[in-house]
Amino acid sequence: MNSDLQDYSHKRYNILTGEWVLVSPHRAKRPWQGQNEVLNKEERPSHDANCYLCAGNTRINGEVNPNYKGAFVFTNDFAALQNDSKSFSLSDGLLQAESETGICKVICFSPDHSKSLAEMSIDAIGKVVDTWKHEYELLGKQENINYIQIFENKGAVMGCSNPHPHGQIWSQSSLPNEVFKKDVKQLEYFQTNNRTILEDYVKQELDLKERIIFENDAFVVLVPFWAVWPFEAMILPKKAQQNISCLSKEEENQFAEAISVLTKAYDKLFDCSFPYSSGIHQAPTNNKDNTHWHWHMSFYPPLLRSATVKKFMVGYEMFGSPQRDITAEIAAQKLREL
Amino acid sequence: MNSDLQDYSHKRYNILTGEWVLVSPHRAKRPWQGQNEVLNKEERPSHDANCYLCAGNTRINGEVNPNYKGAFVFTNDFAALQNDSKSFSLSDGLLQAESETGICKVICFSPDHSKSLAEMSIDAIGKVVDTWKHEYELLGKQENINYIQIFENKGAVMGCSNPHPHGQIWSQSSLPNEVFKKDVKQLEYFQTNNRTILEDYVKQELDLKERIIFENDAFVVLVPFWAVWPFEAMILPKKAQQNISCLSKEEENQFAEAISVLTKAYDKLFDCSFPYSSGIHQAPTNNKDNTHWHWHMSFYPPLLRSATVKKFMVGYEMFGSPQRDITAEIAAQKLREL
Ligand SMILES: O=P(O)(O)O[C@H]1O[C@H](CO)[C@@H](O)[C@H](O)[C@H]1O
Ligand SMILES: O=P(O)(O)O[C@H]1O[C@H](CO)[C@@H](O)[C@H](O)[C@H]1O
Repeated sequence: MNSDLQDYSHKRYNILTGEWVLVSPHRAKRPWQGQNEVLNKEERPSHDANCYLCAGNTRINGEVNPNYKGAFVFTNDFAALQNDSKSFSLSDGLLQAESETGICKVICFSPDHSKSLAEMSIDAIGKVVDTWKHEYELLGKQENINYIQIFENKGAVMGCSNPHPHGQIWSQSSLPNEVFKKDVKQLEYFQTNNRTILEDYVKQELDLKERIIFENDAFVVLVPFWAVWPFEAMILPKKAQQNISCLSKEEENQFAEAISVLTKAYDKLFDCSFPYSSGIHQAPTNNKDNTHWHWHMSFYPPLLRSATVKKFMVGYEMFGSPQRDITAEIAAQKLREL
Repeated sequence: MNSDLQDYSHKRYNILTGEWVLVSPHRAKRPWQGQNEVLNKEERPSHDANCYLCAGNTRINGEVNPNYKGAFVFTNDFAALQNDSKSFSLSDGLLQAESETGICKVICFSPDHSKSLAEMSIDAIGKVVDTWKHEYELLGKQENINYIQIFENKGAVMGCSNPHPHGQIWSQSSLPNEVFKKDVKQLEYFQTNNRTILEDYVKQELDLKERIIFENDAFVVLVPFWAVWPFEAMILPKKAQQNISCLSKEEENQFAEAISVLTKAYDKLFDCSFPYSSGIHQAPTNNKDNTHWHWHMSFYPPLLRSATVKKFMVGYEMFGSPQRDITAEIAAQKLREL
């Protein structure tokens, strides 16, 4: 391990976005006098009559959820994107705006109100993976849908308003900022090397073994060299794949196993239901040549030192660059050992 | 006012960063079932014997604060950047890192433990402005310091660990991500137009009057067209100035007045001590030609609907683009009316 990286303030380069993260390894010992998060250790029932995501219950718009068994998808009752919205474009001096259409869906991971992904079986997670794949294919066929963002906000601290295990799928006509950056950088590399940048990156990480948390035949779970959040992690297919629609049945299982291992390790780290936002970045559905894309799933968990002390991405981070204290190598080591 | 912008989902372009924000005006009515923030309405004493920022008290490293009257600056006891750190650079396959040196300071705005900027007199804020100016000049002279980030995290919800009114100044050898983006975009515009982009933008906004909160002779307070946070605002000098060191005594006063008006309006909005991160973006101190820079101060407040309900920048925002419900025009109108 390069010891300078563990001792001195430095910045690391994110090969996927072209941006930097500031790392301050010497600062991990700073005392904490700020806000403590509320820890909810309440046991939840398997079915909650007041939960609008539980099977058989009525949602705010009057629709009744079916008695679903595996995963269940519906269109968001308060969608941020409208599908039939007016198309317009504004360019008035320095003011520029474009209409944006899309479809926002909610995906319940399980009818069991009490279980998070970490507590679900690999088989049950496999059903979620299968549903993601199906939705990616279905939405991707729509003419006005050029990108599909699958994500989960887990925990009240991540703005999640309902503890029932669920995620979201927002699909839209243009590429969001983060996806656009990754599109550019992946294309640049592919044009020079004729291999995806993540294919080469995974190889390098598997050689070094410093930031690996887990691997099976098809997937690697690691803390990326340029991780921003204290315990950020990434699940990557070892071989280049543009999107989750390329997954074989066996690979779906292995992806489910990788999710299971990582989320279980998270829950053990601070002995709590570990909050995070996770998301899958994959090829746009814009009918262009996207061979430069190598899909991956990232986890951005906010906790820093315990179940109640989180990292705040504020002041310097908002105006300057993201900043972290604990290094990616130490974070990977802690997660690997669990 | 363009009514499409108030009715349909769209994206707006940030001319300073080249990024987009997704706006969903139709969604402002969504019910909130998520986390409520803790509201601290406790009255604070003017001097707190346990506060390490109060005059005369001892800090964690044993140093004693002087009996300061106006603003007081000291070097951060747990600095994220080290000034005498080893210089190194790593480029190993797809891993890239660079050492980064710098100086982090803390600035107490007032010896009065109980007062925020909103509660201080314009004169007292003027002393803070004067100190920022002095620090910008002082740090800027150091050979390894090429950029100086002045910022404030206000409120526990913004990771602020001590209610004593204070901000921070992080200075460093390279340009952080956000500053780099603004450097590029401002230069592009200046090279084509021979005027700063913000000089032209301020003129356009003053003509339209839709997003203006306040103005005096030298400054405008407005909600930028591309605002991300629900009540985000910006203070801009009307005429092009590279950095705060260009401020005359009279302009310092007017800047202090602008800060006072905005922070007081914030406190009135939800009848609470309004949390935010604020920061000044200004020309680097890298001895290059920075005539394309037009300094400005931005406020990123997290509250959305009340003193306890904040906007979460999570899931979609982390993986896609920032997203807002209430439009910049409505936010400006609410703040202007206070
Ligand atoms: O330096 P402080 O106030 O202890 O810490 C706060 O501001 C810093 C700079 O924005 C952040 O890195 C920390 O996450 C935040 O808690
Ligand atoms: O859609 P939800 O779960 O109500 O809302 C949550 O996720 C959204 C997508 O990341 C965010 O825009 C909201 O701020 C957050 O509270």
